[in-house]
Amino acid sequence: MSPSDLVIRAPYVVTCDDAMTVIENGAVAARDGRIVAVGPAAAIPIVGAELIEAKGRILMPGLINMHCHAGDSLFRGLVENLPLEPWLQTVWKAERAILRPTTCRLGAELGLAELLLSGVTTVMDMFWFPEETVRAAKALGIRVATGGIFFDPPGMDGHLADRRLADATAFFDAVEDEPLIFAGCLPHGTYTVSPQHLQNAARLSRSRGGFWCTHAAETAAEQATIIERYGRRVITHLAELDLLGPDVVLAHCVHLDTAEIDLLAASGTHVVHNPMSNLKLASGFAPVPALLAAGVNVTLGTDGAISGNDLDMWLAIRLAATLHKAATGNAAAVTTAEALAMATRNGARALNAADRLGSIEPGKAADFILVDIGRPHAAPLFDPVTHLVYSAGRGDVTDVFVGGRRVVEAGRLLTADVGALVAAADALRPAIAASVV
Amino acid sequence: MSPSDLVIRAPYVVTCDDAMTVIENGAVAARDGRIVAVGPAAAIPIVGAELIEAKGRILMPGLINMHCHAGDSLFRGLVENLPLEPWLQTVWKAERAILRPTTCRLGAELGLAELLLSGVTTVMDMFWFPEETVRAAKALGIRVATGGIFFDPPGMDGHLADRRLADATAFFDAVEDEPLIFAGCLPHGTYTVSPQHLQNAARLSRSRGGFWCTHAAETAAEQATIIERYGRRVITHLAELDLLGPDVVLAHCVHLDTAEIDLLAASGTHVVHNPMSNLKLASGFAPVPALLAAGVNVTLGTDGAISGNDLDMWLAIRLAATLHKAATGNAAAVTTAEALAMATRNGARALNAADRLGSIEPGKAADFILVDIGRPHAAPLFDPVTHLVYSAGRGDVTDVFVGGRRVVEAGRLLTADVGALVAAADALRPAIAASVV
Repeated sequence: MSPSDLVIRAPYVVTCDDAMTVIENGAVAARDGRIVAVGPAAAIPIVGAELIEAKGRILMPGLINMHCHAGDSLFRGLVENLPLEPWLQTVWKAERAILRPTTCRLGAELGLAELLLSGVTTVMDMFWFPEETVRAAKALGIRVATGGIFFDPPGMDGHLADRRLADATAFFDAVEDEPLIFAGCLPHGTYTVSPQHLQNAARLSRSRGGFWCTHAAETAAEQATIIERYGRRVITHLAELDLLGPDVVLAHCVHLDTAEIDLLAASGTHVVHNPMSNLKLASGFAPVPALLAAGVNVTLGTDGAISGNDLDMWLAIRLAATLHKAATGNAAAVTTAEALAMATRNGARALNAADRLGSIEPGKAADFILVDIGRPHAAPLFDPVTHLVYSAGRGDVTDVFVGGRRVVEAGRLLTADVGALVAAADALRPAIAASVV
Repeated sequence: MSPSDLVIRAPYVVTCDDAMTVIENGAVAARDGRIVAVGPAAAIPIVGAELIEAKGRILMPGLINMHCHAGDSLFRGLVENLPLEPWLQTVWKAERAILRPTTCRLGAELGLAELLLSGVTTVMDMFWFPEETVRAAKALGIRVATGGIFFDPPGMDGHLADRRLADATAFFDAVEDEPLIFAGCLPHGTYTVSPQHLQNAARLSRSRGGFWCTHAAETAAEQATIIERYGRRVITHLAELDLLGPDVVLAHCVHLDTAEIDLLAASGTHVVHNPMSNLKLASGFAPVPALLAAGVNVTLGTDGAISGNDLDMWLAIRLAATLHKAATGNAAAVTTAEALAMATRNGARALNAADRLGSIEPGKAADFILVDIGRPHAAPLFDPVTHLVYSAGRGDVTDVFVGGRRVVEAGRLLTADVGALVAAADALRPAIAASVV
């Protein structure tokens, strides 16, 4: 075992490994940002390392939020009580009026601060001016998977469709050496991007070894549009265009037929379940038990704070584990281990980073969080995984480490002035409110 | 205006009055535990009063949780992945082995501590040894509506059915002068209590001016049982027994037909929606929009921590406002004002206490809470009601006042030693775990 520079001891280490192993009175040792040892506290030497005694807390991997639009936090609570399509038209009006590189940077910092404080250490983010999201991520110390947007109508960044490929290519070049960034291409959806532009994006992401992510099968209206336009359902449309596969991440997948589920499973395509967004926008209930049964890798996301209205992965976990019980009438649908895996290791797999992220195992990045179990809602604690899924919440996260660096300590973000971010967002409020009048 | 002994100023006062009035830069003045004035801060004199400047926080009424089994917190996370009926059999086995007056007192204190810390100032609680719940409530300083249980099989308190009426009568006598207690009768359900015993309970509660509360129409299996046994559906059964009315509170009401909804509306019967419990036990989606449209007074509850697995009213609010959008396909179903009213003023109305609780208005009890809006998930804040329903959470509650007495300050419970409660619950853990093996 290599000597370590950081050792954390906790009454429970929930590893989120394949077997969802829990170590009582466990410890994790890290060195240079990577985990070098995991096991019973007594077996982990601490000589020369900083020792953190996480009494009364669970140590677990940082959460991976696989679908977010952090910059949209600026529009939180602005547009309400509409289904996706008319809602998008109003949101886009506000975005077009407000979004500039500076406001995108502010929105990204606000959203990423919320994510870190709630224990998210990696997020896939789709937003305008993604280079501003990268700057925000580096400043705050969170891992972000992002890249060029593809969108055929005029974009909120003022760019037209013919520039998208060049922008996306430049993004790959710009972040090549950024250790916190996963680069990919993010076309908006099959109803807003032509087949040719979807394929251009995939050619680029595949040539760079990056991911390809889009919104897919979110609503019944979207399915109707694609059937009318192309004579086939959304997932079949993607399959025919060679746009499924283990490099593909599809957000939502609420409205699927059996053939589409089979296509997702056979191709190794990853799905992001966004339960709160799907509830609030009346999109429906994603067929998560059927996706799991088919062997699809289901991950979890919050979506943006305009559909949520927050970026609470704990709520996503709780809903992933409970919503489908009622929707299918099966009280055993989606186990606690499955729900917790969706928020951790499954996300790592979708990022092609299962060797580096998603669980507490030697060789992986030292991305972990501490969760307080000293509050009444944690007592008694029969099983830590059950507790994390059904009782824990964002308010329980006390400390967050990304690559061994502590970015949240005792509930305080160390890498940004949260008060200043909140004040800056508040200062923009009149302009934002005026944009939709 | 009478002189006040307490004035709180806040950037927003969300009154939860009939019009859901929000006062920017508002203040509330109280004297002897009652509100004496509400209005713009500049209009509220502070001479001689303790002044609390609640900067960066919303002042709102305490939440009213209308369905809970606080003592069941001892069994949190013990029995998982079962639908209601087999789940109840296992829960009852554990309850029978563990519950004594001392353990019920501990469970009640644990549950009530969790409720106060999350901003609940009044709770309707159904549990064994309700006099222990009363002792816990008085110690912690929370309002509780409770009373004698009616249950035809041998009870977890060791009492048989023929003692229930005497026990329930003694309860009314014992709490007559308790200012924090609302007394009533709480038969378990139509499938566990005979028509005669249900009616005995109602005769008692009506003679004492108390409430009558039972579980009703929670599952499809329950409806099938009652139809088989009595040849009519649950709500019709209650109506035929004269067990509907403005003194009646029915928990769940998930499986209703149109005739049953009409009976509830016509009789002024109150319904408690428990969304998380209904999801987790696979009970289904209560027809909340239809109940609201019919004019039924819908309130909110958490149910016990064995079905939840916590007592989080903020989660109940969020789900009440979002779940039915997806379940009905209508993104405007259940407004934010409706959801917030369910958790405040509607509960007061169900307790026949609309003149005393449920909103911040002169003459009502000084039951209010402060909610932090300085965190990233609160920015920007376009509308405080939208924020409270869609973004706020239990972790945002900083201070809680019941009848003008501060019981939670800066997130710390002043009336009990939370660490000792958690440790005591943990010490019982081996015995509880052994009880279901």
